[in-house]
Amino acid sequence: MLAVPESIGMAQDSLLETLRAAVGPEHVVLRAEIDGRYLHDWRTGRGDHAPLALVRPKTTAEVAAVLRACNEHRVPVVPQGGLTNLAACATPIDGGILLSLERMHGIEEIDAGAMTLTAWAGTPLQVVQEAADQAGFLFPLDLGARGSCQIGGNVSTNAGGNHVIRYGMMRELVLGLEAVLADGTVVTSLNKMLKNNAGYDLKQLFIGSEGTLGIVTRVVLRLHPKPKSTCTALCAVADYAAVLGLLRHAKEGLGGTLAAFEMMWPDFYELVTRNVPEARAPLAYGYGGYVLVEALGSDQAHDQARFEAMLEEAVEEGFVQDAVIAKSEAESRAIWRIRDGSGDFPRILWPAVGFDVSIPTSDIGRFVETCRGALEARWPGVRTVFFGHIGDSNIHIAVKVGDGAQPEAEIEDLVYALVRDWGGSISAEHGIGLLKRPFLGYTRTPEEIALMRTIKRALDPNNILNPGKIF
Amino acid sequence: MLAVPESIGMAQDSLLETLRAAVGPEHVVLRAEIDGRYLHDWRTGRGDHAPLALVRPKTTAEVAAVLRACNEHRVPVVPQGGLTNLAACATPIDGGILLSLERMHGIEEIDAGAMTLTAWAGTPLQVVQEAADQAGFLFPLDLGARGSCQIGGNVSTNAGGNHVIRYGMMRELVLGLEAVLADGTVVTSLNKMLKNNAGYDLKQLFIGSEGTLGIVTRVVLRLHPKPKSTCTALCAVADYAAVLGLLRHAKEGLGGTLAAFEMMWPDFYELVTRNVPEARAPLAYGYGGYVLVEALGSDQAHDQARFEAMLEEAVEEGFVQDAVIAKSEAESRAIWRIRDGSGDFPRILWPAVGFDVSIPTSDIGRFVETCRGALEARWPGVRTVFFGHIGDSNIHIAVKVGDGAQPEAEIEDLVYALVRDWGGSISAEHGIGLLKRPFLGYTRTPEEIALMRTIKRALDPNNILNPGKIF
Repeated sequence: MLAVPESIGMAQDSLLETLRAAVGPEHVVLRAEIDGRYLHDWRTGRGDHAPLALVRPKTTAEVAAVLRACNEHRVPVVPQGGLTNLAACATPIDGGILLSLERMHGIEEIDAGAMTLTAWAGTPLQVVQEAADQAGFLFPLDLGARGSCQIGGNVSTNAGGNHVIRYGMMRELVLGLEAVLADGTVVTSLNKMLKNNAGYDLKQLFIGSEGTLGIVTRVVLRLHPKPKSTCTALCAVADYAAVLGLLRHAKEGLGGTLAAFEMMWPDFYELVTRNVPEARAPLAYGYGGYVLVEALGSDQAHDQARFEAMLEEAVEEGFVQDAVIAKSEAESRAIWRIRDGSGDFPRILWPAVGFDVSIPTSDIGRFVETCRGALEARWPGVRTVFFGHIGDSNIHIAVKVGDGAQPEAEIEDLVYALVRDWGGSISAEHGIGLLKRPFLGYTRTPEEIALMRTIKRALDPNNILNPGKIF
Repeated sequence: MLAVPESIGMAQDSLLETLRAAVGPEHVVLRAEIDGRYLHDWRTGRGDHAPLALVRPKTTAEVAAVLRACNEHRVPVVPQGGLTNLAACATPIDGGILLSLERMHGIEEIDAGAMTLTAWAGTPLQVVQEAADQAGFLFPLDLGARGSCQIGGNVSTNAGGNHVIRYGMMRELVLGLEAVLADGTVVTSLNKMLKNNAGYDLKQLFIGSEGTLGIVTRVVLRLHPKPKSTCTALCAVADYAAVLGLLRHAKEGLGGTLAAFEMMWPDFYELVTRNVPEARAPLAYGYGGYVLVEALGSDQAHDQARFEAMLEEAVEEGFVQDAVIAKSEAESRAIWRIRDGSGDFPRILWPAVGFDVSIPTSDIGRFVETCRGALEARWPGVRTVFFGHIGDSNIHIAVKVGDGAQPEAEIEDLVYALVRDWGGSISAEHGIGLLKRPFLGYTRTPEEIALMRTIKRALDPNNILNPGKIF
């Protein structure tokens, strides 16, 4: 290791002393003693990162003191939540501080009248879900990582998931928040009201900006009534035009209750049902696609009758070729088990290269054909798997060229270039982080990126907040 | 009139020449020839404003040329839509340019698959609603000023209305937009996708910022399926605790179909039903409050049965004392006619001082009692009227002291100070403009206002975009 010049060493000592005074000496962990789990994201390798220290504040005032000191010393700060992100949003920076929110957890308040829940940023998503449930409400955001991801991270990455078509992304579920700016200023906007037009809606700056504009310390979340009925079906369709017809018909026929509309192309359906023993195929192979439709309502008998009538009409209209309707919770789970087969990919498909992209919903069918054709032209015999939250314009893609190491960079170049050509987004719900940074210009114009930089410079002139992420 | 110093006069001539070259000489109207309707907002007097000129561009490129020139000349620009705003967001500035979007109108595209509508900013809201309707969709934003307000103004003020509880405010209905920055940079983000996490969500900067950060030229709006059923009821309740119980019960019992939850305090109910002949009282006087509940669904028979069952349970639970349920569209309209009685205030109540504020939903009942008590203590015999969109935490208040000129400033001081003490917002859905600017600090912290100013300076360093509005 290179020797650290004396002046830098003195500055570091002074910073570390300030940090120890701010959060307590036991919560400033030097590089050599940092547990390995803080040193990489879920998807990135451990790398050879050499952060200066891990700091674990307990209060907003402590976060403010840490940022103030780091800003004065021009030392970068990487905020860390549950470290489950898929785009390398929380990867350490050499010589920087890792600021973990993990000690700042807990539910501060549930306001049943306002239907809000206020939580500290380090609270795991599942703890929030369970607290809402015990109070008789639903907090609808849900992800596979619910047990370890933190609500502050969900805010910072504007998390999505399976119920976006009904309840929106995290952005629609946040009513207020508290954030600490780069210079240590605490901005407390713990709004509980659905309507508030008093000046700029500042919380929007911190939602989805991946910790580059401020560190979220508390959030006021919007709760929903707990649904009392679940209706689930799997439909076989002839082609993508039928999927669009079914989507519109289901939205119209199910009032505000449509809560999931998940399409699986035949490649996905066959891969999962042929390789995952628990995921049995309830519909024949050979159709143009398979769609999981789910409604969450308030009365099982009424809702089930409506749901079945809607599907009968869809058959009459020619949108649906065949369908199975769940008659019990177990049958509903069996249908979801097919869709959840994406969680089995590490076992049944890997190594493969995965994508999370958006394409305007009308164009997804043609995009998939074009993308598959381009991949086959480049790599004859390539395996492709397409599936996604069609109602949200979001598709996931897995690409596998042979059985060995994948030509990842080449595959990404090809797919992201197509996403660009089709006016899509290179990130639907995972964020940009480090991994998608090279492709940001595929989906955002130079003017948009320049405006992002203007905002970044205004809020963080010394570029200490998670520098290098996004752009 | 004072003589204009020669150097300023020359600069003005140069600017006007550039503007004429940009938009065509016939679309640059000098002060003396500007039609009076451009010189004031709906709520503000004509005043003695002396703008330099009214400019009416036709294209985004023309807006960019106008802003570039005004920025170079440091001449302020006031964007103007339909001029129906209630907070003086579009009031002229002496020596400044009025930039009217009225020539930039029309629907650019309806994408049925993506369920989006792209429109120019100057398109009247009603034209957007009708275009959506003709394509078989609902655009749910609705205001009394629908015929004259413009969609760009709805975006710039984050408009609300009666269906926010179901469909959200304008912020939730905008998927993408195009805006011109102060220096003439065109930022085109015409996103059509529900999920797009590729960097900062820049559109949020322009929604609700009242034209102070950029001028919106085009918008991509989210369409919803057209509802096929309407269920409406008017409920008499004992007190505000019962209202909260009914709200939660209705949300749970109506699945995602609850579309309006409008409370009228007895003062409102009696004022309207005793003074507006068309608004007959279907329920006795003397209850603690009256709530209009409406659900928009997909099947009239099913939904009506569910709606009535929900109300029966609400009676059993003690939330509702008495109720009338509309059995036809005419009966539904008759119930709405009472709530719409606020539109008769100019005839049956004026002069009075009106308010649009938010209070956390749990606290609204006690806030109303406190507010009424404080007003009566200060002005014995004062007349007060309370009503609002309780499900959105939004209440409207009218205060009338005697029959003559109102002590407006004193009433505002009293009411806004209470809103501050109760953690509310001085503007629920109307914005800040000039009228509420003195009270912004009642509802926003110094740190929040400082951050707003930081954003403003970063995007508009010469302070030419609607200066003086908001802060």
